[in-house]
Amino acid sequence: MTHLECSLCSRTFEAGRVWNLCECGGPLLVRYDLSRLKKEWPRESLTSAVNSMWRYAPALPVGQQNSIISLGEGMTPLLPAKRTGARIGASDLLIKDEGLNPTGSFKARGLSCAVSMCVELGVKVVAIPSAGNAASALSAYAAAAGLEAHIFMPNDVPQANFIECKAYGAHVTLVDGLISDCGRMVGERCKATAGTPGAWFDISTLKEPYRIEGKKTMGYELAEQLNWTLPDAILYPAGGGVGMIGMWKAFGEMEALGWIGSKRPKMIAVQAAGCQPIVRAFEEGAEASRFWDGASTVAAGLRVPKPLGDRLTLQAVRESAGCAIAVSDRDLMEAGVQLASEEGIFAAPEGASCVAAAEQLIRQAFLKSTDKIVLYNTGSGLKYLEAYSVRFPRVAAGEADKLCGLITPR
Amino acid sequence: MTHLECSLCSRTFEAGRVWNLCECGGPLLVRYDLSRLKKEWPRESLTSAVNSMWRYAPALPVGQQNSIISLGEGMTPLLPAKRTGARIGASDLLIKDEGLNPTGSFKARGLSCAVSMCVELGVKVVAIPSAGNAASALSAYAAAAGLEAHIFMPNDVPQANFIECKAYGAHVTLVDGLISDCGRMVGERCKATAGTPGAWFDISTLKEPYRIEGKKTMGYELAEQLNWTLPDAILYPAGGGVGMIGMWKAFGEMEALGWIGSKRPKMIAVQAAGCQPIVRAFEEGAEASRFWDGASTVAAGLRVPKPLGDRLTLQAVRESAGCAIAVSDRDLMEAGVQLASEEGIFAAPEGASCVAAAEQLIRQAFLKSTDKIVLYNTGSGLKYLEAYSVRFPRVAAGEADKLCGLITPR
Repeated sequence: MTHLECSLCSRTFEAGRVWNLCECGGPLLVRYDLSRLKKEWPRESLTSAVNSMWRYAPALPVGQQNSIISLGEGMTPLLPAKRTGARIGASDLLIKDEGLNPTGSFKARGLSCAVSMCVELGVKVVAIPSAGNAASALSAYAAAAGLEAHIFMPNDVPQANFIECKAYGAHVTLVDGLISDCGRMVGERCKATAGTPGAWFDISTLKEPYRIEGKKTMGYELAEQLNWTLPDAILYPAGGGVGMIGMWKAFGEMEALGWIGSKRPKMIAVQAAGCQPIVRAFEEGAEASRFWDGASTVAAGLRVPKPLGDRLTLQAVRESAGCAIAVSDRDLMEAGVQLASEEGIFAAPEGASCVAAAEQLIRQAFLKSTDKIVLYNTGSGLKYLEAYSVRFPRVAAGEADKLCGLITPR
Repeated sequence: MTHLECSLCSRTFEAGRVWNLCECGGPLLVRYDLSRLKKEWPRESLTSAVNSMWRYAPALPVGQQNSIISLGEGMTPLLPAKRTGARIGASDLLIKDEGLNPTGSFKARGLSCAVSMCVELGVKVVAIPSAGNAASALSAYAAAAGLEAHIFMPNDVPQANFIECKAYGAHVTLVDGLISDCGRMVGERCKATAGTPGAWFDISTLKEPYRIEGKKTMGYELAEQLNWTLPDAILYPAGGGVGMIGMWKAFGEMEALGWIGSKRPKMIAVQAAGCQPIVRAFEEGAEASRFWDGASTVAAGLRVPKPLGDRLTLQAVRESAGCAIAVSDRDLMEAGVQLASEEGIFAAPEGASCVAAAEQLIRQAFLKSTDKIVLYNTGSGLKYLEAYSVRFPRVAAGEADKLCGLITPR
C-alpha cells in the first residue's frame, strides 16, 4: 500500500492514518505499488499459501502480519449448478457460495480487513449502522480483536443478526426507524467523541476505505479458481454495490500484476424491484443514482435507497458492457427455493435474485446459453429464516396430517 | 478401498455393494490397501490439490471422480483462541470451526461421502431419522445429487433445520415423538420397500458405513493444519461419537501411510449432564453404554441416549488415555456466549460444551496449561437461535429503553 486516492476528485491521502471520506464526499480507494508487486509476488507463489483471503495479503492494506484478525474468511467454493443451469438454459453456470464465510456472508471479508486495519492504526471503538449481516460480521471481528463495537439496527432486523451481535458482546441499539436513521445516529456519536480516547470510528460501507479491499478478494479468488481466466458474465446482488466495485478493482490490479489479461466479464448488477436506484440510473444513462423512495424488499441487503458507491458501480457495469436488472420479491424467493432443491445451496434472497436475473437475461438473449456465468450468493439462507418461513409454514404437533406429513407413531 | 470389516466380529464384506450393519449388529468400517497408498500417495502431493475434504480422496471410499457430490465441505479453519485460553488457563488453545461447513455443521462431511457412495452404488432414495443437522445435510447433498430424501424429525426440531430440509426439497415428516420413534419408522419403511425399484436406504449414523469416512477427514485436516503433528488433547462433543471414532481411524491410517508418528492426543468425549451414557460407561469401566433414561439437553446433537458407536468411542478414549466428561446445560450455554464475545466464534451448544469441559479438566490438572488443546466446534450457533434467544430476549419496539438500548430517533 502506497497511499489512498479519492474516487471522485483524485486527491491523495497518506497511508498509516485513520481516514473516512474525502472532503469532497468521495469514497477513498487504496493504491499499491503494483509494478513492484509484479516482480516480487508471482501468482505461482500462492499455491502453498494460507487457506483464507489473506493468501492475497500483499494486495491488502495491512502492513503487520500480527495485525491480521482472521476467522477463516474467503476461499469459498465455486460450485457448478448443472440442474439450475439446465432449467434456465445456461450450460456453464457456476455459483460462488459466500454463505460459507464466518458469520454466514461475504461481509466477513470486508470486516476482517477493516478490523485488522483498526488494530494496525490503533482504533479502539468501532460503530456501524446495519440492517443485518454487516453488523454480525463487525461484531464477530471486533470480538476477535478485542475492540468495543456499537451496532445501530432497525428494530425489524432478522433474529439471527440480533442474536449474533448480542452473543459477540457488541453494544446493540435497536432503532425504531430506518437504516438511514441508524446511520445518522452513528455519525452523531462519532462527531461527539472525536478526539477523545474512546473516539468512535464509523465503519459504514465506503465511509471507511478498507472494507472494499477485503471484498475485492472475491475477484482474486474467482480468477484463481478459474485457473487465471475470468467468466463471460458475473451477476452480483447490488445493495451498496461494493462487492462488485471491489471485484472490478481486483481485476484491474491483477492485470497490472500480469496475472490475467484484459478480458473482462460483463458485470451485471442485480437489484430488487422494490429498491432499484442503480437500475433506474443505468436505464436513464445517469452517472449517479437518485434516492429510491419507499424502498421495500424481503432481501434486506438490497434495501439501500441511495448507495454511496453508485458511481463506481455504474462505471463497472458500463465499462464491462454489462447491465443492471431488477427482480420481484416473488421471483427471487421462488428462485431461492428452486436453487436449494436443485443444487443443495440454500442461498440468501439476495443471492437467489441472481438466479432469477440470469433466467431473464438468457431469455432476452443478453446472455448466451453457452456463456460461462458466475452468480454470487452473498450469504446463507440460514440468516433469513423469517423470509423462508413464509414459504414453509410449520404445522403444530397433532394439528393436521396432510399439510406437512405430521404423524403420531403408534 | 479393498473391503469392509465388522467393528465387532471382524467379518469382512465386499466393496461395491450396498450394506448397512453386520448381521451381529456391529457397524462396518471401510478398509484400504494402505501399504500401496503409502507408495502412491505421499502427503506432499496434497499441497496443490482440491480445497475441500476431497483432497483426501485416495483414503475415501468413492471410486469414480464423477460420483463425488461436493458443496465445499471441509478445510475449515483451525483458529487460535487466546482470550478464552487465558481465561481458562490454557496457553495453546485452538478451535476447529466446523460451523463453516455447508449446512453449518460437520455433518456435511459424512453426508457428502455417504451420498457420493449412493450415487456410485445406484441408490435412488435415502431416508434418515434426525433431530437436526444430519437431516439438513442429507437434504442438501441429496438435492445436489438428484436423490429423493425422506426426513423423519421430532416435531420440536429447531426451525433452522425444518426450513432447510423443506427448502432442499426433502420429504419431511414431523413426528410427535422422540428420535428413537423416528428411527423405528425409517427402519419400517426401509424393510417395506426393500427389493423394490424405489427402495429406501437407511442412512442413519453407523448403520451406513460411509458417513464415518467423511467425518474422519477432520483428523486428516487437523494433522495437515498442524504440519503433520497432533495436539496433546482433543475435546470432541460426543453424541453419536462418530466424529471422534472417525478421527481415531484417520490417525491410524495416517500412521500406516507414514504421514504421522505413533503419538496420539488424549481423546476426550464431552457430553451434556442431561444425557451422558458414554461418561457413565467410562466411569464404570464398561465396554459399552447403557440407555440413558429421560435424556434432556439444549445441545440437541448430544441427545443420544444409547449411541451405536459407544464401544468404538470408549476404545478411542481409553487407548489414548483420554476421558469422558459431562457439562451442565447452564455451563455450556454460558461457555458459548463467552467464546463468542472473546473470540468471535459463535458456536453450537455442542461445541461450546468443549470450552466448559476444558476449563474443568485444566482446573482438575487432567490437562496441563501448556498442552496444545484442540476443541471441535461441530456447528454454527446460527442453527440454535431458539437456545440462544433465551439468553438474549428482544425488547419490542418502544417497550423499554434500559433493557436493551431501544431508542426512538428524534
